[in-house]
Amino acid sequence: MAMDKPAISFEPPRGMRDFYPAEMALRNRVFDAWRRAAALCGFQPYDACVVESLELLQRKAGEEVSEQIYAFDDKSGRHLALRAEMTPTLARMVAARQGSLQFPLKWSAIAQCFRYERMTRGRKREHYQWNIDVVGEASATAEAEVLCAATSAMRIMGMPDSAYRVHVNNRALLGELLVRQGFAEEHHAAVFLALDKRGKMPDEEIAALLRAEGLPEEGVPKVFELMSLSSLDEADAMLGGGSPAVARLRELFSLASLYGYADRLVFDISVIRGLSYYTGIVFEAFDTERKFRAIFGGGRYDNLLTSIGGDPTPAVGLGFGDVVVGEVLKEVLGGDAAPARSGIVIGYMFPEQRDAAITLAARLRSEGRDVDLALAPSKPKHFFKRAGEGTALEAVFLGPDDIASGTARIKNLDTREEAAIDLPAL
Amino acid sequence: MAMDKPAISFEPPRGMRDFYPAEMALRNRVFDAWRRAAALCGFQPYDACVVESLELLQRKAGEEVSEQIYAFDDKSGRHLALRAEMTPTLARMVAARQGSLQFPLKWSAIAQCFRYERMTRGRKREHYQWNIDVVGEASATAEAEVLCAATSAMRIMGMPDSAYRVHVNNRALLGELLVRQGFAEEHHAAVFLALDKRGKMPDEEIAALLRAEGLPEEGVPKVFELMSLSSLDEADAMLGGGSPAVARLRELFSLASLYGYADRLVFDISVIRGLSYYTGIVFEAFDTERKFRAIFGGGRYDNLLTSIGGDPTPAVGLGFGDVVVGEVLKEVLGGDAAPARSGIVIGYMFPEQRDAAITLAARLRSEGRDVDLALAPSKPKHFFKRAGEGTALEAVFLGPDDIASGTARIKNLDTREEAAIDLPAL
Repeated sequence: MAMDKPAISFEPPRGMRDFYPAEMALRNRVFDAWRRAAALCGFQPYDACVVESLELLQRKAGEEVSEQIYAFDDKSGRHLALRAEMTPTLARMVAARQGSLQFPLKWSAIAQCFRYERMTRGRKREHYQWNIDVVGEASATAEAEVLCAATSAMRIMGMPDSAYRVHVNNRALLGELLVRQGFAEEHHAAVFLALDKRGKMPDEEIAALLRAEGLPEEGVPKVFELMSLSSLDEADAMLGGGSPAVARLRELFSLASLYGYADRLVFDISVIRGLSYYTGIVFEAFDTERKFRAIFGGGRYDNLLTSIGGDPTPAVGLGFGDVVVGEVLKEVLGGDAAPARSGIVIGYMFPEQRDAAITLAARLRSEGRDVDLALAPSKPKHFFKRAGEGTALEAVFLGPDDIASGTARIKNLDTREEAAIDLPAL
Repeated sequence: MAMDKPAISFEPPRGMRDFYPAEMALRNRVFDAWRRAAALCGFQPYDACVVESLELLQRKAGEEVSEQIYAFDDKSGRHLALRAEMTPTLARMVAARQGSLQFPLKWSAIAQCFRYERMTRGRKREHYQWNIDVVGEASATAEAEVLCAATSAMRIMGMPDSAYRVHVNNRALLGELLVRQGFAEEHHAAVFLALDKRGKMPDEEIAALLRAEGLPEEGVPKVFELMSLSSLDEADAMLGGGSPAVARLRELFSLASLYGYADRLVFDISVIRGLSYYTGIVFEAFDTERKFRAIFGGGRYDNLLTSIGGDPTPAVGLGFGDVVVGEVLKEVLGGDAAPARSGIVIGYMFPEQRDAAITLAARLRSEGRDVDLALAPSKPKHFFKRAGEGTALEAVFLGPDDIASGTARIKNLDTREEAAIDLPAL
């Protein structure tokens, strides 16, 4: 060992996170809910390496994202990168076996994703994102099933139904409305941008933005008219009735009633989710008080596979990051965000009780009980202080008298209640 | 969407793995066993980003490993790398909070690790490695607890106790023996190398190797004498009795008896585990027939923290990769390596039964049952064919008659037995 070298930084690289056991407990609360919800709703787990070919990632990413990719060459000169999102990888894996996979696929992955961003407001350069996707189903049952998994995950991680809303829109509805209102194709992007800014900046600034983008003056009030649409009935009326895009949204809301999560959905004309990529229904979940960024988001993207050279395949996907939901959970649950105590911790007073402590631990573990065994003798005061600061629910401390009597006390650290526990014969 | 671009490769980057749901099932069998065993034995989960500072990784890695690190610079010129192992990160995290953490720590992580190797015999450039470590405990209870977690994981993943052995040695014993046998310090590395080659190459080649390394001729038979040591009694006798290193090994074997895994441990003088790093007991697990590389390995490394500038801290660690154990499981379990069927799949014949299928799925999911819901109508033959090829244990298929009667049949796909299931009122 080189013991003479100077100390080096103990911090993780800038923008990367360490998870000590306390932080890991919250992360596991979220990850476990994601895994459980995926299983509950029949999504199969898949995964791929965080290292992808740079070409694949650039193919889907917009210009901005492309600049934010962590790219590097391997020792053979291959252009590689750390993925910024899971979807290009999903598309690649599906395209590679498009002839043999059984569609529709319902797949789930928890993927670490990297993005080189300027470090503002505690933004990180990596996060974990739960991806669930239905690939190969054109009907709205795909959207409904994806949202079932997402809302199930929220419930499993302890988020009250009232604490968030899923804002739903349809890109096709926006398309119909823009045509109906007479916006030229060249101005659609500016209108999308304005809708996206609704509520985030004053109306005058949005109007100035639209003018700067070259929208004719008579178009500006029409954009605000669009922005003010607050129900499917209003949207349908503006379109003269019979809108296919409205019908599609109505179908999703109707399915949501059957699934039992319709109370958490709201129609929101301002949900856009970027300028390309999505082709139909889009959605974003926010905490009810709108204090945080989107908790999860997604929608239908029927062109994904063709973009990398695969066969045309309808698809619906959702991305659900670990950072925002962690913030919302801490806000909503407060102290309840910490995991409940569980398991048993066993300690002992003198070396003479060590073997009894080990055999007791071995017996309880063989019964499937989680046991943290002290590795050295300690004073009872020190043992119970550490046990109280730890995560175990029950504590057993062995002294000479316990060994003599063949029985010890097991103490519940929540209720302070004690019970007798027999010691195994040595 | 850019639909006119040419197709790109659908393969993952060279040496990286895709996990389709079938491969993911085996991986989850292993990962779930690791997580369960960690909880069972009171190891707390931790994690850190796969991206580390290059300096940290180079500090611990030997020359060879240093050349195999995937290194890159971020856009600010920081020298970063994908970790090749978790231990430097563990050391960094412990050192960062050495004043506030409660020792001994018992920590567990499943870490993806990267190594740029020449691609031979299907070797990959990334793997997952379970790391469990006890930091801050000098007694052999640390080794015993680490091996308890490792052997528990083997059992949980379905590995028979008879299918593997943990080969145990003590670096301090080798030190005592080399001194006793009169090997000069400069020849210790050559002797370690020869021990490491025991059984892997013919004796004449080992002898040639020793001579090439400059070992005096009279030393060669002494090395073979060392190699032939097959019990702690023999080793103790060679040392004239009273060896502290032998006593330490005896203590570990005695602890293993109390824990209940002594039948899986064997003393093996040839276990070396590299030339530096480890300071005491070392161990490696192999399948009993020795057809595969080591399943897991580790030992005591009391100098790790000082090597990066932290305070001296005793530590025991274990690394358990996902690749070799996956191969051994497939060999040992054969068809039983596939997961048991579980959950329910629900299908329906015509669009008119869709809502009933959804409400049935919603009810079963609210009861906590895993339900894969078909997203479109299908013919019964097609539904049951796909269900049979899938992973669900039970299947429900709704036709017009089922809706009319308010009851359907639920079929067990293993036993072919059927039972009635009430449908919720719509």
